[in-house]
Amino acid sequence: MTRFEPNLRIPGPTALPPSVREAGGRQMVNHRGDEFKALTKRVEISMKPFFGTEHDVILLTCAGTGGLEAAVVNVLSPGDRVLAVTMGAFGDRFAKVAEVYGAAVTRLEVEWGRAPEAAAVRAAAAEIEGLKAVLLTHNETSTGVTSDIAALAAAVRDAAPDALVLVDGISALGAVPFAMDAWGCDLVVTGSQKAWMSAPGMAFAAVGPRAWAAAQTAKMPRFYLDLRRHRDSQASGESPWTPAVAVMYQVDEGIRLMQAEGESVYARHAACAAATRAGLRALGFALLADDAVASRTVTAAWIPEGLDWKAFNAGLKRRGLILAGGQGKLKGRIFRLGHLGAVTTDDIIAAISSIEAQLLEAGITVQPGAGVAAAQQALVAAEGR
Amino acid sequence: MTRFEPNLRIPGPTALPPSVREAGGRQMVNHRGDEFKALTKRVEISMKPFFGTEHDVILLTCAGTGGLEAAVVNVLSPGDRVLAVTMGAFGDRFAKVAEVYGAAVTRLEVEWGRAPEAAAVRAAAAEIEGLKAVLLTHNETSTGVTSDIAALAAAVRDAAPDALVLVDGISALGAVPFAMDAWGCDLVVTGSQKAWMSAPGMAFAAVGPRAWAAAQTAKMPRFYLDLRRHRDSQASGESPWTPAVAVMYQVDEGIRLMQAEGESVYARHAACAAATRAGLRALGFALLADDAVASRTVTAAWIPEGLDWKAFNAGLKRRGLILAGGQGKLKGRIFRLGHLGAVTTDDIIAAISSIEAQLLEAGITVQPGAGVAAAQQALVAAEGR
Repeated sequence: MTRFEPNLRIPGPTALPPSVREAGGRQMVNHRGDEFKALTKRVEISMKPFFGTEHDVILLTCAGTGGLEAAVVNVLSPGDRVLAVTMGAFGDRFAKVAEVYGAAVTRLEVEWGRAPEAAAVRAAAAEIEGLKAVLLTHNETSTGVTSDIAALAAAVRDAAPDALVLVDGISALGAVPFAMDAWGCDLVVTGSQKAWMSAPGMAFAAVGPRAWAAAQTAKMPRFYLDLRRHRDSQASGESPWTPAVAVMYQVDEGIRLMQAEGESVYARHAACAAATRAGLRALGFALLADDAVASRTVTAAWIPEGLDWKAFNAGLKRRGLILAGGQGKLKGRIFRLGHLGAVTTDDIIAAISSIEAQLLEAGITVQPGAGVAAAQQALVAAEGR
Repeated sequence: MTRFEPNLRIPGPTALPPSVREAGGRQMVNHRGDEFKALTKRVEISMKPFFGTEHDVILLTCAGTGGLEAAVVNVLSPGDRVLAVTMGAFGDRFAKVAEVYGAAVTRLEVEWGRAPEAAAVRAAAAEIEGLKAVLLTHNETSTGVTSDIAALAAAVRDAAPDALVLVDGISALGAVPFAMDAWGCDLVVTGSQKAWMSAPGMAFAAVGPRAWAAAQTAKMPRFYLDLRRHRDSQASGESPWTPAVAVMYQVDEGIRLMQAEGESVYARHAACAAATRAGLRALGFALLADDAVASRTVTAAWIPEGLDWKAFNAGLKRRGLILAGGQGKLKGRIFRLGHLGAVTTDDIIAAISSIEAQLLEAGITVQPGAGVAAAQQALVAAEGR
């Protein structure tokens, strides 16, 4: 049961590939010198296809939450009417940021574990006169649900053509195809510790022309997270404040690995998600999200009645499997298994194997091999054979 | 002339010692697991002696500028009267943050290259009715001047006992003794890429009881940089948002090295500063700051009339010496040599040697060996022999 490195199956920070670890240990350079300017430009340009944008990608030194704050404060003014479509803890957080800075926030709350429907978003958006922005979560990390941003953004444009579409894309961008420009999103945020296979510490905000226009009149105060200051500095490959140099090294290397893998990045995440779901179900777990809205980067399962989760999870840890618990109102009721970034199908098979063995140790009757067999079948099916 | 790693003599990011590089390349762990909680607690506790405080040290994932913003927005409300004592680009930045968030800022501008005098601060503070806070810069990175925070804080307390003393300690804390509690400072900020010998990406804010009290009524909006949210999370070794895990690994290791070195950390910085100043002067450079206020972490020198700095600096780069230019109104007029963090006296001798050789290459008459000899004499004197 010994593992020489844990199977880190939380939805970020994600495990680092060897070459990314090496990048994180590199020596510092002058962050205003030519070498680092070239790296900044390379990261900025090579991220664009993952966002599906031809517009600017702004590099920020902060956690994903800082990126969400940047999305809000750069395009809105106090009193602006905002529709926050929420389906979990991170949607709530996005809404909270807007409230703290004085926006008039209306919430369209979707039951945790479900995804918002376009018709409901269209109706809610149409009801708010002078709607300035809609906050959407692409992948809700707290529930393992992915929303249909293409449909939701279209609904917003239909009901309120002038409203900005701001998207929390933190925990799926890069792992799941995204088409910011084609879908009509105005500002999309992601974070280094997710699909990019790097340490936490940087957020990335893709900013479209409507968002830049809004930034010119937006009155919420901002300085550290001011996107226009960053854009002006990035024009010459710099950042207005000292950037997280080592995280940038890692993101640069993470993107190189993703580029080498090509479209298979997306297929790998889909296969890992399918195997996780099949394996957990075969072991008797009920999943929080329906298949139709299930995330490709994190899976949430209900903790069965009567299972002592604390003891069970301690057993998993001894086996080297690190899972995440529930957040907010799902705390103590679900567990989450992350499968994003440098995840492999082998990692998923290993995770299901550990859970299966631990169930048996806990005296719960499962058919030995049922979980890994189901996961394996899902993998084979995902490979199209 | 070949070097196998540049002599990175900018005032941050500073070069990383080997064990800190190794720490930066470590694998991720669960940032909400016991291992990382213990690390968070260790960093928090072991930083306190460097601040000279028994109060809280809050760990933020951002650049130093984010730390300055946190200092402002957590204790002030729009309209609050603030005295900003400025002596360079970073003091200006601190003042600007307060203005952006709506404070009524009065500036006491000290000539760049000079340090503020306590009497002037006392007079300026006494003149502002209802003064809420004074912004001070401990070490002005743009000019290489260190102010006497003990005297300035005492002057503020004398003139305006209720005014908070907020200190930008970014580029000297840890390299120069500091006594936050004894001097009566309320909030002091530093950054990971300075004396802590780590990559950029984290700021640290020591917060005293008067600052916490002010936070309860402060009305400037904040979310990502909300210090109270961080304090509440840190109580259990966590952070409210995902922390910069790899930078934390590095800071933890950097502090371990500093603890092992003990009081000699301060002596090493003093010796490196003295050697830098002696060496540059022997080579004919005029220094920006008088000896009495000269920084122990960065030295600024005037670019001599007629010297083509761009070509000269390109020559230094070829020799492996990386210096910083001037900022703001000193751009193109000075250069800066950083000597903080993992700097050694050998690095300084090497830097002076490179500058000396480059002067000769540029056709400027200097006595070969004069610079390094003067630096060496200063080192020997600093060792008290």
